Amino acid sequence: MTPNGLGEFGRIGRFFAPLAGPGGLGLTDDAALIGCEPGRKLVVTVDAMVAGVHFLPDDPPDLVARKLLRTNLSDLAAMGAHPLHYLLASALPASLDDAWVERFAAGLAEDQRIFGVALLGGDSVSTPGPATLALTAIGDVAEGAEIRRSGAQPGDAVWVSGTIGDAGLGLAVLKGDYADLAKTHRAALTRRFQLPEPRTALGPSLAGLAHAMLDVSDGLVADLGHICEASGVSATVRAPDLPLSPAAKAAGADPAQAAVAGDDYELLFTAPPHAEAAIRRAASEAGVAVTAIGAVAAGEGARLLDARGQPIPLERPGYRHF
Amino acid sequence: MTPNGLGEFGRIGRFFAPLAGPGGLGLTDDAALIGCEPGRKLVVTVDAMVAGVHFLPDDPPDLVARKLLRTNLSDLAAMGAHPLHYLLASALPASLDDAWVERFAAGLAEDQRIFGVALLGGDSVSTPGPATLALTAIGDVAEGAEIRRSGAQPGDAVWVSGTIGDAGLGLAVLKGDYADLAKTHRAALTRRFQLPEPRTALGPSLAGLAHAMLDVSDGLVADLGHICEASGVSATVRAPDLPLSPAAKAAGADPAQAAVAGDDYELLFTAPPHAEAAIRRAASEAGVAVTAIGAVAAGEGARLLDARGQPIPLERPGYRHF
Repeated sequence: MTPNGLGEFGRIGRFFAPLAGPGGLGLTDDAALIGCEPGRKLVVTVDAMVAGVHFLPDDPPDLVARKLLRTNLSDLAAMGAHPLHYLLASALPASLDDAWVERFAAGLAEDQRIFGVALLGGDSVSTPGPATLALTAIGDVAEGAEIRRSGAQPGDAVWVSGTIGDAGLGLAVLKGDYADLAKTHRAALTRRFQLPEPRTALGPSLAGLAHAMLDVSDGLVADLGHICEASGVSATVRAPDLPLSPAAKAAGADPAQAAVAGDDYELLFTAPPHAEAAIRRAASEAGVAVTAIGAVAAGEGARLLDARGQPIPLERPGYRHF
Repeated sequence: MTPNGLGEFGRIGRFFAPLAGPGGLGLTDDAALIGCEPGRKLVVTVDAMVAGVHFLPDDPPDLVARKLLRTNLSDLAAMGAHPLHYLLASALPASLDDAWVERFAAGLAEDQRIFGVALLGGDSVSTPGPATLALTAIGDVAEGAEIRRSGAQPGDAVWVSGTIGDAGLGLAVLKGDYADLAKTHRAALTRRFQLPEPRTALGPSLAGLAHAMLDVSDGLVADLGHICEASGVSATVRAPDLPLSPAAKAAGADPAQAAVAGDDYELLFTAPPHAEAAIRRAASEAGVAVTAIGAVAAGEGARLLDARGQPIPLERPGYRHF
């Protein structure tokens, strides 16, 4: 048996069919069938990852799978949606053998249990290039309860969940930087890069509270800029209020660095001041810290301000692919 | 301005946002919102294509886009579903400039008009490897009207739409074979490879008539084998009855060659004998030829038989990716 001895159908049958939910029809049909509950709408998103661009070729395959799934679940959470299903398209080089695929599928199985989602279908093809993965996630939300980017209003506070900047530092650690940092801190940072925590409980609970929301993937200030553009407003972030983790602080990270780091997958949202108590209650119930970090006003653009209210110049407003 | 001067967001705004339907929210949100009509279910599928594997790197980008969309619409048709929406994940090398992306999007726009579908969302990333594309298509079907692979019954006739083997020959033509063939025939064959015709009208009209259905992508006998496996039956195909196009005949194609060629995206289905008149009527209304080519029986496996009913050995039962 060669390392790829199972073949395309063998891999689907052995590793992926056990992940299929009822709508997936055992992955033996051309397409999957899903229903939609009365009074709810479906929410659909897709994210792609490429080896060497979005993950390191040597990353453990189970973590690659889980990050791919989690970044999509984060997009659903950012709309206020509950996750339900996903589809997976994979283009894999021959160098990734059955054992790699098995570990990849095991990662999906683990996160299916955690997040209550199931595989609906997919496509597996070969590539002469790097492993390339695209995952389509489907969730649902009560009609009218979706939280879009375009609802921010002057007077809103800006909030963020969790801590910011860890994933960017984690990538640096994986590349060999911060070698002097304590091992526990390095582990905490790399985990944030390799295994983000989609805020699937907090997101839907902010329906009726948040005016606008997204998840931080390009970098906090760049992403806040997306909200500003979609909403026709401006926003400022108070650098001293940005939540940094103990590991990020130990690494000497400053707010200006954290504010342009990507891949944190925390929820960034705006909400009217009177919603504060309800937001803190929702966050407490979801077990996620939230921090008020800024304010929305008329105008355009997102800026980071220092303790004296002066703009902090940012070297790189956020990650761009090309 | 560099050849990639528009950047990730510029490309989305310029080329893809105009393709977005109402559920796509202008492609400015983290996810798309779609509804589901009462009494209907959604049907979802994903297909991936890699430059150098599924299409030739020099193929016109509009045709690449249209083939990608059409192969997915074919999967929906094979379930008896009407197409509605799609999402696109693209990993593109820097060598593909804005002009390539513009032509790619123009191909999508053209097929959106033909098939009545709209873009819901997507993800655009860069890759050091070949262009890799994954498209997720969403359609709907009346509850219970979906046509699966698993419903074939002994006594059913086996039917196929259109003609078989053309796409495989078209690929050979593109690679330089069949240079002596008349230009019109060569054009007809390459078109079948580059621009398949998803049977979006015929597929849904076979609800209540076909017991089992799929679209021919791996090769007719291999795909019929998938129906047999899912249904727990066997099937035979009469080689002399396989529908070959004038171009395929001029190229000297024989049924054994056509029966293992992939990528034709014709509908292959089984139906009880009493459905014949209704099937012919549905096909006539859809403007698609259909041909009865074989029979379903007890047992297992799909075989090609010659004029005397003897099995024809097949060299390669169908395309496998690894």
